[in-house]
Amino acid sequence: MFEMPTLSIGQYTLVYNMLSFAIASMFAAFVFFIMSQNRVAPKYRISLMVSALVVGIAGYHYFRIFGSWTEAYQLSGGVYEATGKPFNDAYRYVDWLLTVPLLLVELVLVLGLARSKANSMLTRLVIAAIAMIALGYPGELIKDATSMFSDRGLWGLLSTFPFLYILYVLWGELGKAMASQPPRVAKLFEGIRWLLLATWGFYPIAYMMPFFGLSGAGAEVGLQVGYSIADVLAKAGYGLMIYAIARAKTEADAEFEEVISAPAPAVA
Amino acid sequence: MFEMPTLSIGQYTLVYNMLSFAIASMFAAFVFFIMSQNRVAPKYRISLMVSALVVGIAGYHYFRIFGSWTEAYQLSGGVYEATGKPFNDAYRYVDWLLTVPLLLVELVLVLGLARSKANSMLTRLVIAAIAMIALGYPGELIKDATSMFSDRGLWGLLSTFPFLYILYVLWGELGKAMASQPPRVAKLFEGIRWLLLATWGFYPIAYMMPFFGLSGAGAEVGLQVGYSIADVLAKAGYGLMIYAIARAKTEADAEFEEVISAPAPAVA
Repeated sequence: MFEMPTLSIGQYTLVYNMLSFAIASMFAAFVFFIMSQNRVAPKYRISLMVSALVVGIAGYHYFRIFGSWTEAYQLSGGVYEATGKPFNDAYRYVDWLLTVPLLLVELVLVLGLARSKANSMLTRLVIAAIAMIALGYPGELIKDATSMFSDRGLWGLLSTFPFLYILYVLWGELGKAMASQPPRVAKLFEGIRWLLLATWGFYPIAYMMPFFGLSGAGAEVGLQVGYSIADVLAKAGYGLMIYAIARAKTEADAEFEEVISAPAPAVA
Repeated sequence: MFEMPTLSIGQYTLVYNMLSFAIASMFAAFVFFIMSQNRVAPKYRISLMVSALVVGIAGYHYFRIFGSWTEAYQLSGGVYEATGKPFNDAYRYVDWLLTVPLLLVELVLVLGLARSKANSMLTRLVIAAIAMIALGYPGELIKDATSMFSDRGLWGLLSTFPFLYILYVLWGELGKAMASQPPRVAKLFEGIRWLLLATWGFYPIAYMMPFFGLSGAGAEVGLQVGYSIADVLAKAGYGLMIYAIARAKTEADAEFEEVISAPAPAVA
């Protein structure tokens, strides 16, 4: 059975505080995305709503993870020892199963593409996202794997294919759609794509940690701190960039409206 | 007395996570249905309100089921053993007694049929739904039935008649009403009808599991995971399709308005 490592007070508290930081960030972002609805044109509000759902769901899960963390440890003789109650890190997978498809949905929706194009892309991205998470989960449960060539490695590999497909759509198909977008939107899209790659890239690294013999107190603390930062950036930070795109598109649409609705110049 | 089977940590955790998944999905859907009110025309908002009630009620019940699950088991020597506290699966019936009639109500309301027609259909569907759930409940309590020809089988059979009546209304009467709906609405209605059949179809199968000798850890885990997925699809997924119908009808109404309110072409 997988045993949680004994932690110093400083290590335990660092994770505790980072989990709490994630709760606060997610719920603050939730309030912001709800409240900023009418700062963007009606057609982009759905993306802000989805952003709100994502950070709301993540806030709930961080609340649960936080609870599980406090139950997994007890202070004993100046250090934190495992109580034997398993720390339920798998909450993260449940969270991702819901939030990762939604993150892709909000990105496609905010670009305001033609409905048929958007629908087809959404369907494929959502299926790929669900496959990616569902294939990673069985491997995550195999905590004692020490080699790439284990069942954990195999599940990880299977999960990589849908991930590559998502990147392929983001850089290929969606990238092409940028040609018809205002320059500011294209620039923000470029940024959000890199944010996605950088933050999502943390998860496979965390997944592979046991293969490199990384375990024990330092690894566990690094993992939890890393997950918390990656999640806040990938959800609240990402949502803020979606909001920036929605604002930029609202302004671009307004300029366009002004041009076409301006009265024809009087001819002398 | 019915005894809960001993589960491995992986099995226990899978159910635990799926129940939490259902809680997160239902409450996220609740927020979405409340927030998307003004994305549809006022006459279709009542359906979104009912959708919100359904997932709100379901989220509450999943919260209760989750609590009951954690109390029914304790970790002992690397496996999860029954504590003896009964796992209250009957929460599901209480939930269905409220939500199943409401699911039919939101479907009829979103189609915006003539009031006299809608009222008669609603009354009959609600009575059938209540009869279906109420007749299944006494059989569900008979956990040790091993044959179709038991009291459990009899209650199940009685509960099937109102279920067939509901299908008869959906495919007959309501199906006919589709002739006068916009094509996109008719297509979505077709989809929602199949979603309903596929997800509701899981419940009688789960009900009949003891007749096929399916019991023990694997069966219990399969049952709980299946219920969670079926419920999320049948309530949150179904609500999203109702929302799509409401949007499609809002757009169709707007086009119709434009046609009839356009000024008559000036005749020279």
